[in-house]
Amino acid sequence: PVKDKRCRKTWQVKPSLMANNTLNPIRAIVDGMKLSPHPDKAMISLSIGDPTVFGNLPTDDAVLQAMKDAINSHQYNGYAPSVGYLKSRQVVANYYSCSEAPLEAEDVILTSGCSQAIDLAISVLCNPGDNILVPRPGFSLYKTLALSFGIEVKFYNLLPEKSWEVDLQHLESQVDDRTSLLIVTNPSNPCGSVFTKEHLQKILTVASRNCLPILADEVYSNMVSPLDSFPSLASLSSDVPIMSCCGLAKRWLVPGWRMGWILIHDRNNIFGSEIRQGLVKLCQRILGPCTIVQGALEGIFNNTPQGFYDDTIHFIKSNAEICFNELSTVPGLKPILPSGAMYLMIGIDIERFPDFQSDVDFTERLVTEQSVFCLPATAFEYPNFFRIVVTVPEQMMLEACGRIREFCQRHYRPGRRDKNDLDQ
Amino acid sequence: PVKDKRCRKTWQVKPSLMANNTLNPIRAIVDGMKLSPHPDKAMISLSIGDPTVFGNLPTDDAVLQAMKDAINSHQYNGYAPSVGYLKSRQVVANYYSCSEAPLEAEDVILTSGCSQAIDLAISVLCNPGDNILVPRPGFSLYKTLALSFGIEVKFYNLLPEKSWEVDLQHLESQVDDRTSLLIVTNPSNPCGSVFTKEHLQKILTVASRNCLPILADEVYSNMVSPLDSFPSLASLSSDVPIMSCCGLAKRWLVPGWRMGWILIHDRNNIFGSEIRQGLVKLCQRILGPCTIVQGALEGIFNNTPQGFYDDTIHFIKSNAEICFNELSTVPGLKPILPSGAMYLMIGIDIERFPDFQSDVDFTERLVTEQSVFCLPATAFEYPNFFRIVVTVPEQMMLEACGRIREFCQRHYRPGRRDKNDLDQ
Ligand SMILES: Cc1ncc(COP(=O)(O)O)c(C=O)c1O
Ligand SMILES: Cc1ncc(COP(=O)(O)O)c(C=O)c1O
Repeated sequence: PVKDKRCRKTWQVKPSLMANNTLNPIRAIVDGMKLSPHPDKAMISLSIGDPTVFGNLPTDDAVLQAMKDAINSHQYNGYAPSVGYLKSRQVVANYYSCSEAPLEAEDVILTSGCSQAIDLAISVLCNPGDNILVPRPGFSLYKTLALSFGIEVKFYNLLPEKSWEVDLQHLESQVDDRTSLLIVTNPSNPCGSVFTKEHLQKILTVASRNCLPILADEVYSNMVSPLDSFPSLASLSSDVPIMSCCGLAKRWLVPGWRMGWILIHDRNNIFGSEIRQGLVKLCQRILGPCTIVQGALEGIFNNTPQGFYDDTIHFIKSNAEICFNELSTVPGLKPILPSGAMYLMIGIDIERFPDFQSDVDFTERLVTEQSVFCLPATAFEYPNFFRIVVTVPEQMMLEACGRIREFCQRHYRPGRRDKNDLDQ
Repeated sequence: PVKDKRCRKTWQVKPSLMANNTLNPIRAIVDGMKLSPHPDKAMISLSIGDPTVFGNLPTDDAVLQAMKDAINSHQYNGYAPSVGYLKSRQVVANYYSCSEAPLEAEDVILTSGCSQAIDLAISVLCNPGDNILVPRPGFSLYKTLALSFGIEVKFYNLLPEKSWEVDLQHLESQVDDRTSLLIVTNPSNPCGSVFTKEHLQKILTVASRNCLPILADEVYSNMVSPLDSFPSLASLSSDVPIMSCCGLAKRWLVPGWRMGWILIHDRNNIFGSEIRQGLVKLCQRILGPCTIVQGALEGIFNNTPQGFYDDTIHFIKSNAEICFNELSTVPGLKPILPSGAMYLMIGIDIERFPDFQSDVDFTERLVTEQSVFCLPATAFEYPNFFRIVVTVPEQMMLEACGRIREFCQRHYRPGRRDKNDLDQ
């Protein structure tokens, strides 16, 4: 008979440290907001980075057809290698390869969305106790993933007055001997900014001088206008090892399909086979993205008509301009004109809005009074701004801007004010 | 000008501890083997747990049609909630719910394959320094994931002479105060065994007495015959909190699609909202499985004809019997008759094969001489056995068994032998 050597006499099941440390700031902030829209006004949500929600930006038929072809072929139901089918990796390599930054199939790792690409890049390069450099304002997932692994996050500033270029001095001042990765998001979420070639070169100089590998989050690559204004980071460097993370989500407007990739650019063999092997091993944990989507990649890349991409960019650009122009004349707001991605950041002259303490307050009340929901940029570590998603239908964009104007006009207090006034 | 406070003057980019600690024993063993098939014999691979490789077990048309319907609906291109669409979770809940173990949509978490379900279950319940109890022989992913998180693995024995039932005394002797999870694989990979209701109850008693939550890996659920012989673990317990991990991979024969799920059974509210919230947070890292497959779940469950499942089970059972019967009469081999999943384990009386030192040696030479590849069970922590996958076409199965017989007859040395004999 089994000896009774019970170790626990009561149930004590608690979530792990990792689960507790996996924090999504957007959820933390949004869940804490009282979002009760005005009963007489239809809700307009300008908060979600999902271009598909309003139905005005469907993906192209060629993209859907490629999926159906993959299904009908019966070729893509079994397990693929954990890093993806060689053929699909080749297709991605061909698509992105250029003379300045050539790619082979072996330089491509297919992932479950760009999110997993970022997860893998961080987890192969960083140890607990290391730190990573992350843009502020910036996409919140970097911090979420880093903290869950016990990796520290150090922010470097972007400069709104310089179209969100990196404050290079500040960036370099943040580097220390435990810094293992520099993350560059270009085009940017939440800023909608696109760096010039010259600016990218300066970032590369800092990385090179400090021997810092780069995670280039280029999930919005090619979502800029004019198109030729966007060089990829890797095409400008011959020494800095770069993992460029991207995917189908934004450009092909199918974020739910969870197809992303890492492009490994390592011309000086600094990552070497060790890092590549590390990525392969990490991919074996969950065995890669859906094989049907992998099988569809060739058709998606080859058959999507240029007009589809152009139309998306044109629509976003036009909507961004409408929004920028409308809000430029609203008292107390300072929109920053974007040149890519699908976002617009707007500064709030919070001193002129004594009714609100913060961007979170401001955007919460914008829902209550006008049924317009924008993400407070505190979610991107950037208080006193808010972010607008510009993929909504044009009429909705205009209506939203009108309501924001009304809201600001009502709450704006002109003239110089000091702390005492506000406190009354 | 930027002060030169460089921290690294040379590139030092090394893979993280986590990457280094993510070890796949199958790869480690197989990559170390010299696999050069005999030039005159076509290679027969009985090593891969992918039922689709030979084309004899296609998925059902209804499964493919459900995918095409999901694509044509244009409803499943955007982001789903990270734990999956509520509707898809509801569909899964309905499919598995029974009066003994009722499920609601909120008890279901959709994941990127059963692999990610296991990854999430381990990572929400265990901290570095904890240990988990894993069957031996057993599926290697548990150890791979645990070690990558710094979680220790303690093995409990399965008994081949008792159709691979758990050695309950040994199991209980392995529990200590850092044990945070018991993993039960039923039906089993690599054994093909299926536990009786009575045996499952005994396992639950051990878990209950030691206050151990269970990860029930039931990815081969329903792949048993007769069908009613398989109760799920959760249907037999009212107190032990259980995460049942499963997916489309095996039963629907589409492992590449990467669709899995966790069913949370927690009738006494021991996981409580904390563990559920922990799972939700962990899902936000990579945002769930492909939405097209999520959208197809309803059609897949509702429209797949019963005959499809029956045919698969019938085929596997018949092939397993052929293999068992053929190999039962081979000198030096001891196959164990399976009753589910799609595997068969075969003991090697290694003392009778003086030409080989181990199962790894044995299977390597089986490739060299007979072009038949089986996984050495060292990959499952169980030396001197090998595993055969029984989903290959019947003719291939017969041919492989014939070659294995020839191989064994050639190398078998009857009679008592001692170490000295072998060393000569
Ligand atoms: C900058 C940035 N990177 C990565 C992602 C994640 O992309 P995916 O949906 O492919 O995981 C997003 C999504 O919004 C993003 O804005
Ligand atoms: C016992 C067991 N669990 C889980 C898995 C992984 O399943 P999936 O392909 O859905 O990740 C396998 C795959 O072979 C398995 O044998």
